[in-house]
Order: sequence, then structure tokens, then C-alpha cells
Amino acid sequence: MRKRAIGVIGPGRQAGPTELAHAFQLGKLIAEEGWVLLTGGRNEGVMEAASQGARAAGGLTVGILPGDSPEGVSQAVEVAIVTDLGNARNNLIALSSEVAIACGMGLGTASEVALALKNGKPVVLLTGDRESQNFFTRLSPDRVFVAESPQEAIVLVKAILPALAESG
Amino acid sequence: MRKRAIGVIGPGRQAGPTELAHAFQLGKLIAEEGWVLLTGGRNEGVMEAASQGARAAGGLTVGILPGDSPEGVSQAVEVAIVTDLGNARNNLIALSSEVAIACGMGLGTASEVALALKNGKPVVLLTGDRESQNFFTRLSPDRVFVAESPQEAIVLVKAILPALAESG
Amino acid sequence: MRKRAIGVIGPGRQAGPTELAHAFQLGKLIAEEGWVLLTGGRNEGVMEAASQGARAAGGLTVGILPGDSPEGVSQAVEVAIVTDLGNARNNLIALSSEVAIACGMGLGTASEVALALKNGKPVVLLTGDRESQNFFTRLSPDRVFVAESPQEAIVLVKAILPALAESG
Amino acid sequence: MRKRAIGVIGPGRQAGPTELAHAFQLGKLIAEEGWVLLTGGRNEGVMEAASQGARAAGGLTVGILPGDSPEGVSQAVEVAIVTDLGNARNNLIALSSEVAIACGMGLGTASEVALALKNGKPVVLLTGDRESQNFFTRLSPDRVFVAESPQEAIVLVKAILPALAESG
Repeated sequence: MRKRAIGVIGPGRQAGPTELAHAFQLGKLIAEEGWVLLTGGRNEGVMEAASQGARAAGGLTVGILPGDSPEGVSQAVEVAIVTDLGNARNNLIALSSEVAIACGMGLGTASEVALALKNGKPVVLLTGDRESQNFFTRLSPDRVFVAESPQEAIVLVKAILPALAESG
Repeated sequence: MRKRAIGVIGPGRQAGPTELAHAFQLGKLIAEEGWVLLTGGRNEGVMEAASQGARAAGGLTVGILPGDSPEGVSQAVEVAIVTDLGNARNNLIALSSEVAIACGMGLGTASEVALALKNGKPVVLLTGDRESQNFFTRLSPDRVFVAESPQEAIVLVKAILPALAESG
Repeated sequence: MRKRAIGVIGPGRQAGPTELAHAFQLGKLIAEEGWVLLTGGRNEGVMEAASQGARAAGGLTVGILPGDSPEGVSQAVEVAIVTDLGNARNNLIALSSEVAIACGMGLGTASEVALALKNGKPVVLLTGDRESQNFFTRLSPDRVFVAESPQEAIVLVKAILPALAESG
Repeated sequence: MRKRAIGVIGPGRQAGPTELAHAFQLGKLIAEEGWVLLTGGRNEGVMEAASQGARAAGGLTVGILPGDSPEGVSQAVEVAIVTDLGNARNNLIALSSEVAIACGMGLGTASEVALALKNGKPVVLLTGDRESQNFFTRLSPDRVFVAESPQEAIVLVKAILPALAESG
């Protein structure tokens, strides 16, 4: 009965137009698969765009917020988890997602990717940035996957999930 | 677009039959109001019963788990937040609920009630135990409410919510 | 080589003169035993008074702070742990203390006492308040101890510690 | 009266001989400056070696542990902070250190470096690994410093600290 949850992580204010378009598309595709979208919940950047995309396709959106109130939550988040953990909430996004998709890269995103991998979670990197790809692939060769498009990211997630079910 | 989330907290294994019946009923009534049910997510006691009740009425159930995996999650939880925070996760249940309803009392429940009140959240005590009522009412006279039945607890929540909206 | 850490918990701004005097005395006595004093670290109430007392006796003081910076830390805290966990930091004080002494009672203190007991830690209640004594003693008959003075609290801690060593 | 705390982070079991030697030296030099050494506290790898180094020079060692008990703590840790936060405890090391020194690189270390930088803390990378240097320098050009030796790392920390005092 539990729903699959897929995390989409990425920059907030500093997200660029390609990242925002990718995030919206990821949210939409995740919702179309019937999965729950999990993000950091704030009303900016990749979190906002992915949540809007999922809602546009009628999906369920969960936001794991850093502050002590729902202030600053995206209008497209239906379930807000208020943590008051600051950046430590990144570990909860990592742990609660079956697979995390990184859409762009920043310091917060880097910490989330590292925490997800440290916790044994697969991560799909949707970024053309070779440096990030090399950095994380070397630290965790078996769990880092690289996608060129939102569609390819979802294909990768669908390929990874059955393997998780077997080992889980 | 954000859904209202109401927390139901209470003992795990040590919950008695009345507490379990109340928790199931609370879950059902919360779902019938269209609110999200928030619990500690484990497959025992008040968490399990409330989640089953909410699902029986077609409601959305969110469980905020203490461990580092979904192991031990209630089958009736649809969205599992895996925190790896141990008992510190009690603060997240308190913060993420607009109102928390305590169904029975134990050490974990006592910590959740205290944290909810400390964070400024109203708490409805659904317990005949006068000692708990007196202890918490004295510490927080304005935010502790006492109910005699699940139905009365929901009536109280409905009376409290508009006041929250105005002050929020 | 690890030092024993004893937690002193209690109200902040709302602490009364007896509580402050008791807290100062507790800090002093803890330092004289060669134990580390652990508090919530802020510059008010029981945290401040206990830290001042420990420093007056040349002891080591550790403060586990709720915010994301050392702002508001007591001048008498030598080692500041900056958690950015809000009230969830109360669980860390509980877990890091071998025994916790509650000097007075408030919502934060109640959550710390409940969390300490839930985590299996002994708690000494230094408060004349029968309601708090009864509430917690009933929830955890084997781990709640009541002291009438700071001196008696320390006698109790010294009696409890060897039993911890044996079971630990 | 508050002591300066410098964090040393790095791999656990996977630490190599150079990293261990560097970590021991870092701990020793930090203690000789009169600073508190902050680590993840476990009895392996960089945490263990740095704590041993600091103790060899008579310094104060604080370990911020991931589990719910002091089990697995380094024998060279004098003050153990038991968090039960899992990998989220990495954020506490980052926040509690005035400067963090990364001695080697792994997934946990990468998350700590990213969290430290995200929280606005300067980080000294003591690693010959150009990929890590480039990855983090690009994400945070102003706060990443590269050292070739433990001695150089300490020189950098001493240069950074006065600037922190001015801006703090």
C-alpha cells in the first residue's frame, strides 16, 4: 500500500532555466508513474518546478522543509514535513527516497547526493557537468547513474527499482 | 493546495484496547474531514490503529519513522518519511501537525506533547488520566484541550483550526 | 579516558530564584566531582546558572545549542555544540548525559525528562513539585529519582553511576 | 571563555596510511594551538587518528557520534556527544567547527564538506586529489582552501580565524 517515493534535488534560487525545465518535466513524469514526488519543499528553484510539474499531472507532492514553520513552502506541495533541522533535513530527503535524481548541482545538492550515496541509495545525475559526474562516480561507482534528459532519468529509475525490491 | 495535517500520537506496544479503538476512530474521522493523518508510522499501537482507521475511510496516511529504513512501517502508511533521528523524530511530528491529538500516554507520547506545546502547537488530550491532564494543562493552560471521545476530539480540532488560520 | 557527563536541564527565562540558586550549586558540585557539565547552552535560566557554577569550580562546561550559530551562548560555556536542530536538540542532551538532573520544570524540561527516560537514562528531579514527580514516576518507576537539594541530587547520581557501569 | 573548535573530518575504515599520519599530526597541532578538536568520534580512521594526536599533545577532544550510545567511540575522545542522528550528525560537526579540515575524501567527508560550505564555514582540503579540489572550489570559490601538509593546514586556519572574528 506504501507509495514509491522519488526524490528530486537541485539548486534553489540559483537554478538556471534548463534545470527548471528539467525539474518540471521530472515532476510530471514521476507523477505519471504514480510515484510520490519528494523535494526540499521550498518555493524556489528545482523544488518549486518539480512540485509544479507533479501537480500538473495530478501527482502527490511531499516537501521536507528546513525551517520551523511552513513559511516559504511551495504552493505546489500538498504534504509539508516541517523539520526545523536546517540543512540536516537533506539526510531525510535522501533516506525517504527510493532513488534521488539530482537536477543541477550546488552545495546543498552536493550534500544531498553524498548523503544519499552514503546511505546506500542510488542517485541519478541529470546534469551535463562532467566534474560532478566524475567526482561522485569515483566515490560510489555502483550507485551513480548519469542521465541526459528527464525521460532518460525516469528510464533509469525504472530499471533500478526492481533491483532494489530484490535486495530490499 | 496544501492539505491540513493532524497528528495522532500515543503508545506503541503498550497501548490498551480502548486506546486502540480510539485511535482507529480518530484516523477514520480525520480522513473523513479530508485531513492528512500524521503518525510515528510504526506497525504497532496507536500509530498502526490510527493509520488503519484513516485508510479504511480512504484517507492519506503519512508516517514519520525513527529508524534508517522503512522496516517496521505500518502497512497502512502510504507515505513514509525515513528520518534516522531516533526519538528526535517526535519533534517533526509535533511541528508538522496543525494540531496533535494524544491518544493515551507513555514516555514517547509525553515527549511529543511537551514538544508540540513548546513549539506553540495546540494539543488535544484524549485520555481519562487526570494526572496527565493536570500536568500539561498547568504547563500550558492556553493550548491543552481535553476530549472524552474521538468525536469530541475532532469537534475540538475543528474549533481550534480557524483560530490558527487567523493568527498564522 | 572519556569524562563522565552529567546533564542539568531546566527552564530558561522563566526560572525562579530557587531554581537558579540550585542550578549554580549543581554546576559547582558536578565540577567538583570532576564530571563534565552538559546543558542546553543558552545564556539564561538554569543553563546559564549551572554553567556559571561549574566554571566557578574550574569544571568543563559543554552547551548543546538549538540554533545555527553560537549566538546566545552562555559566557560560561567552553565547548559549544551548534546543532541547528531546534527543540530536537533536547534529545541530544538526554542521550549524551549519563544522568540528567531536572532543576525546575517547564515544557522544554518536560520534553527532555521524557526523552531521557525514553532513551533509558536515569533522571533526578530536583523540584518540590509533586505533580511532576507523580507524572514521571508513574511513567517510569525505576528511573525517576527525587532530590530535595543539589547535594542530595549529587548523592543520588553517585549512587546511580556504578549501577550504570555494571549494566552498560 | 569559549574555546575555539576546529573540525577534522575524513574517511573511517577506508583511510589510508598518509591520511592517518596527517590526521594524527593535525590533532597534535590543533591541541598545541590550544584549540578543541572536533571529530565524528568513532574509533577508526581519521577520527581516531586525529583524536589520538590531540590527546598526545594534551588537547581536549570532542566526538559527535552518529549512534544512540557511546559504543564505538574512540578511546581518545574525552567528551562524547551522542546524537542518534545517523549521518545527519555531519551537519553538527560542520556547524560546531570554526573551520573544518578535510583529511582525505569519501562519501561522508564529501557530505561534511558540502554541509560546512553550505553553512558558510571555511574548509581546508588536505588532499592531493585534484578532482575534489576542483569540485568544491568551483561550488564555493571563496571558502575552500587547499593545503599540502598538516602544517600548512594550520597556517591557513590561523590566517582564516581573524577574518571570521571580524565578520562574526
